[in-house]
Amino acid sequence: MTRDASPPARWVPGGGRGARSDQKAVHMCRWLAYSGTPILLENLLYRPVHSLIDQSLHARMGVETTNGDGFGIGWYMPDKDSPAVVRDIGPAWSDRNLREIAGHVVSPLFFAHIRASTGTAVQQTNCHPFRYGRWMWMHNGAIEGFPLLRRDLALAVRPDLFPHIEGSTDSEMMFYLALTFGLEDDPRGAVARMAGLVERTGRQHGVAHALQMTVAVTDGVRLWAFRYSTQRQSRSLFYSSRVETLKSLHPDVAFLRDIADDARLIVSEPLGDLPGAWNEVPESSYGVVRPEGEDEMHAFAPE
Amino acid sequence: MTRDASPPARWVPGGGRGARSDQKAVHMCRWLAYSGTPILLENLLYRPVHSLIDQSLHARMGVETTNGDGFGIGWYMPDKDSPAVVRDIGPAWSDRNLREIAGHVVSPLFFAHIRASTGTAVQQTNCHPFRYGRWMWMHNGAIEGFPLLRRDLALAVRPDLFPHIEGSTDSEMMFYLALTFGLEDDPRGAVARMAGLVERTGRQHGVAHALQMTVAVTDGVRLWAFRYSTQRQSRSLFYSSRVETLKSLHPDVAFLRDIADDARLIVSEPLGDLPGAWNEVPESSYGVVRPEGEDEMHAFAPE
Amino acid sequence: MTRDASPPARWVPGGGRGARSDQKAVHMCRWLAYSGTPILLENLLYRPVHSLIDQSLHARMGVETTNGDGFGIGWYMPDKDSPAVVRDIGPAWSDRNLREIAGHVVSPLFFAHIRASTGTAVQQTNCHPFRYGRWMWMHNGAIEGFPLLRRDLALAVRPDLFPHIEGSTDSEMMFYLALTFGLEDDPRGAVARMAGLVERTGRQHGVAHALQMTVAVTDGVRLWAFRYSTQRQSRSLFYSSRVETLKSLHPDVAFLRDIADDARLIVSEPLGDLPGAWNEVPESSYGVVRPEGEDEMHAFAPE
Amino acid sequence: MTRDASPPARWVPGGGRGARSDQKAVHMCRWLAYSGTPILLENLLYRPVHSLIDQSLHARMGVETTNGDGFGIGWYMPDKDSPAVVRDIGPAWSDRNLREIAGHVVSPLFFAHIRASTGTAVQQTNCHPFRYGRWMWMHNGAIEGFPLLRRDLALAVRPDLFPHIEGSTDSEMMFYLALTFGLEDDPRGAVARMAGLVERTGRQHGVAHALQMTVAVTDGVRLWAFRYSTQRQSRSLFYSSRVETLKSLHPDVAFLRDIADDARLIVSEPLGDLPGAWNEVPESSYGVVRPEGEDEMHAFAPE
Repeated sequence: MTRDASPPARWVPGGGRGARSDQKAVHMCRWLAYSGTPILLENLLYRPVHSLIDQSLHARMGVETTNGDGFGIGWYMPDKDSPAVVRDIGPAWSDRNLREIAGHVVSPLFFAHIRASTGTAVQQTNCHPFRYGRWMWMHNGAIEGFPLLRRDLALAVRPDLFPHIEGSTDSEMMFYLALTFGLEDDPRGAVARMAGLVERTGRQHGVAHALQMTVAVTDGVRLWAFRYSTQRQSRSLFYSSRVETLKSLHPDVAFLRDIADDARLIVSEPLGDLPGAWNEVPESSYGVVRPEGEDEMHAFAPE
Repeated sequence: MTRDASPPARWVPGGGRGARSDQKAVHMCRWLAYSGTPILLENLLYRPVHSLIDQSLHARMGVETTNGDGFGIGWYMPDKDSPAVVRDIGPAWSDRNLREIAGHVVSPLFFAHIRASTGTAVQQTNCHPFRYGRWMWMHNGAIEGFPLLRRDLALAVRPDLFPHIEGSTDSEMMFYLALTFGLEDDPRGAVARMAGLVERTGRQHGVAHALQMTVAVTDGVRLWAFRYSTQRQSRSLFYSSRVETLKSLHPDVAFLRDIADDARLIVSEPLGDLPGAWNEVPESSYGVVRPEGEDEMHAFAPE
Repeated sequence: MTRDASPPARWVPGGGRGARSDQKAVHMCRWLAYSGTPILLENLLYRPVHSLIDQSLHARMGVETTNGDGFGIGWYMPDKDSPAVVRDIGPAWSDRNLREIAGHVVSPLFFAHIRASTGTAVQQTNCHPFRYGRWMWMHNGAIEGFPLLRRDLALAVRPDLFPHIEGSTDSEMMFYLALTFGLEDDPRGAVARMAGLVERTGRQHGVAHALQMTVAVTDGVRLWAFRYSTQRQSRSLFYSSRVETLKSLHPDVAFLRDIADDARLIVSEPLGDLPGAWNEVPESSYGVVRPEGEDEMHAFAPE
Repeated sequence: MTRDASPPARWVPGGGRGARSDQKAVHMCRWLAYSGTPILLENLLYRPVHSLIDQSLHARMGVETTNGDGFGIGWYMPDKDSPAVVRDIGPAWSDRNLREIAGHVVSPLFFAHIRASTGTAVQQTNCHPFRYGRWMWMHNGAIEGFPLLRRDLALAVRPDLFPHIEGSTDSEMMFYLALTFGLEDDPRGAVARMAGLVERTGRQHGVAHALQMTVAVTDGVRLWAFRYSTQRQSRSLFYSSRVETLKSLHPDVAFLRDIADDARLIVSEPLGDLPGAWNEVPESSYGVVRPEGEDEMHAFAPE
C-alpha cells in the first residue's frame, strides 16, 4: 500500500528508545489513537493512572503542562462509514459530557485529543480531530510562522476542498493539504508532499524549520501515525507493546484485563509508567496499524 | 405495580383530543421520551418535519416559541444500568455535538429535552434530564412562586439525597422530592405525594395554583408520564398511536419505515402533522409504558 | 470626505418610507449603532419595549424570528483608540455578562449585534462586530453562494491582512476586502469596490444576485451605514429622528428622557413603535454620522 | 467599626513573613482585591510578570497548579451602588472577553478570582465573586465535608436570603451565612459567627477541621480580608507594601509607574518576585482597607 521503498519494519519491536528530544514547543497538545477489539472509551481515557484526561491537567513532557484549550473525540461505529466527532472548547478534565460519552460508547477505532493553544482562537472548529468523509486527522505540533505562511498554504488547497476549512489552525490546514495531495489514495505520499510544501513555503518566507508534527490519520480501518520535524527534534510519540506480553509481565495489573490482545495504542505521551509498555516511535518515521496483518514502521521524509 | 385503584385504561386509544388548554406559561420547555426497538436517536430528534430540534427554534404550542436555553439527552445502553446524560447550555438547533451523538447512538429507551428559562440560570445542572442512579426525570412546567417555596421544599428532601441537588430549578427539586417519597418503589404514589406537598406548601405561602407539570420518569425499563396542574389546565402531552396503524394509514411516509412497530413516543408537542398519529393525554392522568404487556393509562391526583 | 458626486442629502428627512422589501433571507441578524452623548448601554440595549435584546428572542421583520446564535458589542472609551469588543456564542437574551456590561459601561459610540446563523459555525470569531485597529464593522445579510465564492474572495484580500481573518463568515471577509480596498482612507469607495468585487465574483460562479447587506462601520468618530443588495431588495435599515422632535411629540415617554438631543441611532429594526421615531434608509444608499456637522445621506452603487 | 478588642495593628508593616503552611488543599483558587486610585484592570490582571491570569495556568503555591475552572471579576463604577460582576466558566488565560474588559474598564475597587474545582459543577453561578446588593464576596479554601454539612448550613440561612443562592459551592453558602449573621452591619462579627457555625456543624458531623478560608469582602468602599482555618494552617494571603516605598526601592520597575501611591492590593499569591513588595497576612487575622485613614489588622477567631 505504501510506496515507501524502505523495508517494512515491525511496528512493535523495541527501537526508538532514544533520549528525550529537546523540545522548544510553542504549543503542546496530547493525543491518543486506539485500534482493536471494541472497547469502552473510558477504559483508556479515564482509567489509566496517567490517562489522557489526567494529562489535560498534568502533562509531563513538554513546555506547557496544561492542555485546557478544548478537546475532541472521534469514534467509528459498525454500520456507519463516517465517524462521530464530538469537540468542545472547555478543559477536558472537568467536562461532564465527555465523561458520559466515554462511559457509554464502545468502539473499535477512536481518536482523542486535548489541546493547548498559544494563539489561535479557542473554538470548536479549531479542536481536533478534524473529519472529512470517513477520514479523521489529529495533530500535535505546529507550523512555525504560520501566520506568515497561511495564505500561501491556503492557496495550495484544492479549490473544491477550500470551503470545508472552518477553523484557523495550522493542523486543519495540514489536513486539507494532505487531502489535496491524495491522502485518500496514498496516505504516506500525501503527508510527505504536504510536509514538503510546508517546508518549501517556510523557506520562501525565511522560516528555517517550518514543520513540527506528530500526526494520526485514519480511514476507519487502517491507522497511520507520523513523527517528523524539519529540525529532526520531533515531539514525542509512543506505541504500545503487545498486550499479551504486558499481561505476562504484569499479571497483577487490573487495568490490563480490560484490554484485548489485539489492542494497538499510539499516544503522544505514555499512559502511566508500566515498564515495557511503551516504545518510542523513532525520529522521522511513520507506522501503519491495520486490523489484520503485521503492523509496519518505515522511515519518513518530506517530498 | 401501581396502587392506583382506577381501572387500567389502554395507553393508546383515542381519548384526550380535547381543546387546547389556556396556557399562561411562565416558561415552556419541550420533551420527548422513546421506548421500543433500539433506534438511532436522530431518526426521532432530527428527521421528522416538526422534530424536537426544530421545536427548539419554532415551537407552536405555548407562549415561548423559542427553547434556546439549553438541552439534554439521556439514553440507556444494553450492559449499563445507569443512563448516559449529555446536557449543554446553548440552543439545541445549532449544537454540533448533539447532532453527532444523535447520528451515532442507538438506544431502546431515551429522553430528550429542550429548555426555555425565564429566570433560573442557564447552566448544565439546570438542564434536563436529571439522573439518580438508573432513574431519569424530565419536566415541562413550573412551580408557581418557586423562590418563595424553595426553602420549605428543600427541607422536605431526605437529608442523604439533599447533597445530590446541583442546580436551582423547580424541576430538579420535584425529582428529589419524588425520590424522597419512594419513587424507586412506587412511582405513581411518589409523584402524587410530591404533587401534594407542592400544593400544600404553595397554599401556606398564598400560592393558589402551585403546580403545573408534564413529567416523564424512567428506571431504564418502564416509562411513566404524568400530566397534571393544580388549575386543571395542564401543558400539552401526547402519545403516539400504534405504528402499525400509522403505517397502514400512511404507507408512503418514509419517516415511518425507520420506526419499529413496538415504538412508543411521548411528547410535549406532536412531531409533525401526520393525521391519526398523536393522541392527547387527558388532563390529570398518567400512563405507563413497558416493554412487554399493554400500556396503561390512569387518573392522577395529588396525595 | 466622500468622493460620491451626488449632492449630500440630510440624514434625517423623511425619505425611504418604502414598502417592506420581499426578503428571501437565508439568515437574518439584527444590529444597532449609537453615536452621541455618552450613554449607559443598557438604556438602548434593554430598556426600549422592542429592544435589541428582545429582538434576539422575537424579531419581527424577517424569516428568522430568533437571533440566538451569538452576539457582540463594541464600544469606545475616551482615552483609547481601539474599541473594546465582547462577543459570545450563546443567545443574548439570557447572557448575564452582557447585561452586567450594559449596565455599567457608558460610551459615546457603540455597536451591538445579535446573530442568526444557518450554516457557518457558532463561534466567537464569527460574531460581530469585527475589529481591525480602531475600526469596527458589523453586518446583516449574506453573500449568496459564499462557499463557492469564498476562495476567490480570500485571494483578493491583501496578503498582510489575510492572517487577521479568524472566522469563516462572509461578513468578516467583506470587512477585510473593504480594508484591502482602502476603508481607512475612503470608506464609501472601499465598500463600493468590495461590493463590486463580490458581484463580479458571483457572476463568474453563476450567482446572479450575490450581495445582500446592511453594514455599519466606524473609526471611533464617524459612523457609516450602507444598505444595498444586488437585487435591490435589501434588508431593512432605519435611522432615528431627531430626539428633540421626538421629545416634543411624546413628552410623556420616559425612555426618551435618558436620550440626549444629539443621539443618533441606526438599527436594522425599529426599537418599539413610537410614531415618528424611525425613518427607513432608502434602497441603495448610505449615510454618514459625525459628532459635528450635519448628517448626510447619499446614493450607493458598487464599483 | 470593628468590635475586635485587640489593639489595631497597621496593615502594612512587615509581620507575617512566616514559613509556608503545609497545605492539604482539595482545591485551590486564586484571587486579587484592589482598592485605590482608579486603575485600568489590565494593569494588575495582565501586566505583572506573575499576574493573576498567568497564575491561572501556573500557580506556584498549592497542590493544584492550574486554575482553569472559571473566573470572575467584579468592579465598582462611580455613580452605581451595585458592582458589575462578569463571570465565565472557561479558563481565564484564554478568555478574550476578560482581556477586552480588563483593557477598557477603569475602577477604584475591584475583585478578580480564578477557580479550581475538584467536584462542584463548573458553572457561572459557582464562580466568584458573589454579589448581594452592593456587597461582593470571594473565597479561596473549602469547607471540609461540605456535602455532609450542606443541608444543615442551608437551613441556617435566613429564609428571605435562601432563594438568592444560585450555585452549589461552599463559598456562596459562606457568603449567605455571613449575610444572615449581619455582614452588612458588622463584617468582622458576621464572618466570625459564620466560621463558628461551620466549625460547630462540622464537629456534629465528625469533621474535625471544617474550615479553610481566605475571604475578601467589600461594600464598595471598605475592603475586609480574612485568613483563617480550623487547623491554623491557612492558605496563603498577602498584602502589598506601600507603593511609595516600593518606588524608592525599585525606581527602574516600569510596572510600578502605573500604580498610584494609595494603591492597596490583597492577593492569595504574590504577583511577581519584587523584593519588599509583599507581606504575608498572619495566621488567624483579618485586615480592613478604607479609602481614608490607616489600614488595620486584627486577630480573628470564630464565634
